[in-house]
Amino acid sequence: MGNEPITSEEIFAAHEGGKLSVAVGRPLASKRDLSIAYTPGVAEVSRAIAADPDLARTHTWASRLVAVVSDGTAVLGLGNIGPSASLPVMEGKSALFKTFGGLDSIPIVLNTTDVDEIIETLVRISPSFGAVNLEDIAAPRCFELERRLIEALDMPVMHDDQHGTAVVALAALENAARVVGKDLGSLRTVIAGAGAAGIAVAEILLTAGVRDVVLLDSKGALHAGRGDLTGMKAEFAARTNPRGVAGGTAEALAGADVFIGVSSSKVPEEHIAAMAEGSIVFALSNPDPEVAPEIARRHAAVVATGRSDFPNQINNVLAFPGIFRGALDAGARRITPAMKLAAARAIAALAEDKLSADYIVPSPLDPRVAPAVTAAVAAAVVSGE
Amino acid sequence: MGNEPITSEEIFAAHEGGKLSVAVGRPLASKRDLSIAYTPGVAEVSRAIAADPDLARTHTWASRLVAVVSDGTAVLGLGNIGPSASLPVMEGKSALFKTFGGLDSIPIVLNTTDVDEIIETLVRISPSFGAVNLEDIAAPRCFELERRLIEALDMPVMHDDQHGTAVVALAALENAARVVGKDLGSLRTVIAGAGAAGIAVAEILLTAGVRDVVLLDSKGALHAGRGDLTGMKAEFAARTNPRGVAGGTAEALAGADVFIGVSSSKVPEEHIAAMAEGSIVFALSNPDPEVAPEIARRHAAVVATGRSDFPNQINNVLAFPGIFRGALDAGARRITPAMKLAAARAIAALAEDKLSADYIVPSPLDPRVAPAVTAAVAAAVVSGE
Repeated sequence: MGNEPITSEEIFAAHEGGKLSVAVGRPLASKRDLSIAYTPGVAEVSRAIAADPDLARTHTWASRLVAVVSDGTAVLGLGNIGPSASLPVMEGKSALFKTFGGLDSIPIVLNTTDVDEIIETLVRISPSFGAVNLEDIAAPRCFELERRLIEALDMPVMHDDQHGTAVVALAALENAARVVGKDLGSLRTVIAGAGAAGIAVAEILLTAGVRDVVLLDSKGALHAGRGDLTGMKAEFAARTNPRGVAGGTAEALAGADVFIGVSSSKVPEEHIAAMAEGSIVFALSNPDPEVAPEIARRHAAVVATGRSDFPNQINNVLAFPGIFRGALDAGARRITPAMKLAAARAIAALAEDKLSADYIVPSPLDPRVAPAVTAAVAAAVVSGE
Repeated sequence: MGNEPITSEEIFAAHEGGKLSVAVGRPLASKRDLSIAYTPGVAEVSRAIAADPDLARTHTWASRLVAVVSDGTAVLGLGNIGPSASLPVMEGKSALFKTFGGLDSIPIVLNTTDVDEIIETLVRISPSFGAVNLEDIAAPRCFELERRLIEALDMPVMHDDQHGTAVVALAALENAARVVGKDLGSLRTVIAGAGAAGIAVAEILLTAGVRDVVLLDSKGALHAGRGDLTGMKAEFAARTNPRGVAGGTAEALAGADVFIGVSSSKVPEEHIAAMAEGSIVFALSNPDPEVAPEIARRHAAVVATGRSDFPNQINNVLAFPGIFRGALDAGARRITPAMKLAAARAIAALAEDKLSADYIVPSPLDPRVAPAVTAAVAAAVVSGE
């Protein structure tokens, strides 16, 4: 029965009235209950927090509450559909936070796409929550927004479409490299897509020691000779592509060890076939991978997708619940590169005992994942800050 | 055991970790569950809302979600203690919304006290919720804020410290007048306190047909001859006090039928003693009423307070859960005077069968109240809009 196709009726029925509700910790059944949770009792707690603001951390829900924030400009594969239409996705994200990380969260969807206004708005409401998960915000605005929001807020802030994807991709790549017996530092790596996910994947691979990374946008490989690049793309053109590869996937993939697709654009089979022996293909676009996994598997030693119906599902849910939970548990004020690397290693470690070409990351439903990531991230906070 | 004094330990223990959590409607236990509530299934719902924005009302939680908004400037009797310290009160309010109205709500506490900024902020995040309960915002800013926010947002907005109090006070006054056999239109009424609650009580009494209302601020009765008044006070000096009473409670209460205290300032026994036969005293300041109820009872026929340990507790919880629930159930975009009058009448009606000097309003825990208010308010929406 679990394998029957999911119908639209079933999906819409499951969304009726929304997917979240607010629950009250202790029932308000008597006058005494009311006098404790509301007036006059609550005044003691408010007075105590006014005198010692640190008490807000322990005696309100805010310090462990994640704001799931979107302006609705890059929602799943649907693009700029606006804040209201993005809300079911944000509710879903909140459901994942709760289910996998045990974290409460509230969707905050925004009527503005202006970076200054978004930052100003979140700063003004920031006493209401303890962390910000940015979601489905279009590149290149997402880079500036995240960077400036991290500066503006004294709490963990992470754009999950960037770093959640990057952490899980790194975890998968570490294990894929083990499967094919190659060293991370030696991998010729090609990333198709220089948006939110592509830039973040490139960044974490560089941090993890991958030296040869070529990023492609819709016009081909980013290299120092391209005159049309600005912002993050210009920055990454300077920091990546040490061999100065120019051209498209044909040129970039010839002899490459790793292909990571986060672009939705198709890659012809012959380009995959031209990769090095023991190649690794992560075709992560959803629902249509850059190359069909059964085709990629003819040539590559390890193939992963974003889909649940093929082996090796690279899914952000492996990362973000534990990253935020670990950061909040440890009282972190930033999510650092060390915390992201620790998360990736914790995810990779859980697949190591049964490692194979078809098992490089644990299942998104594996209950060991979030606690392991939480512990690793919290340890990285303690040792790193 | 329920009568033992409540200790600080008990209060702080009940607030540890906060009082709210977010619950997920359907468990995410299988890949199939994930595919329905998150990708890829959720994309169908997002796409449908993008095509038909009305679907956000039925397929997200936002249209029934109340934002409980405060800037922390007038919190209980504590004054301007800031947003973080106000949060336990807002969490308590959310707990009351859920318990009595079955409504989900999220506390939004603000880092700014600027009216323009608060409005701008709430407009920007407004796709996240379906109604706004303003709470504990100082007068006179609260009047401008509520008025302009009602214009700016296409959803129910109500400052509960004003209108929740006013609705319950009117309900109590209607029944108190029945007990003493007087007509609302004939009542000489004195309201001590021209802040949020006092102005709103005056407004609803005028709407309900009370003709002789005298409002007092810290300098005495508002009347047309006072040169020091601006804003709402100037407006109410012109609209109230038809006999041009000047002076303090001594002058105002001499021969008056009704005293409503929402000011925290004490009223001497002799001023209460000088009221008319069959007088009505609502000493609503918490925890210290303007006049002790046992003293007031020596002279007045009906006495009410805001406290749970005396008869006739005038508590906002009788009103706001049903007002918001009724407004949201009926799809109202405004909370109108007719809806507030309907709420007051519904509350009053529930006490009518056992009406006495010591029972003019139902108990805040009476389970009949919120459904009755909800139905009355929803009916007023349907007939009035």
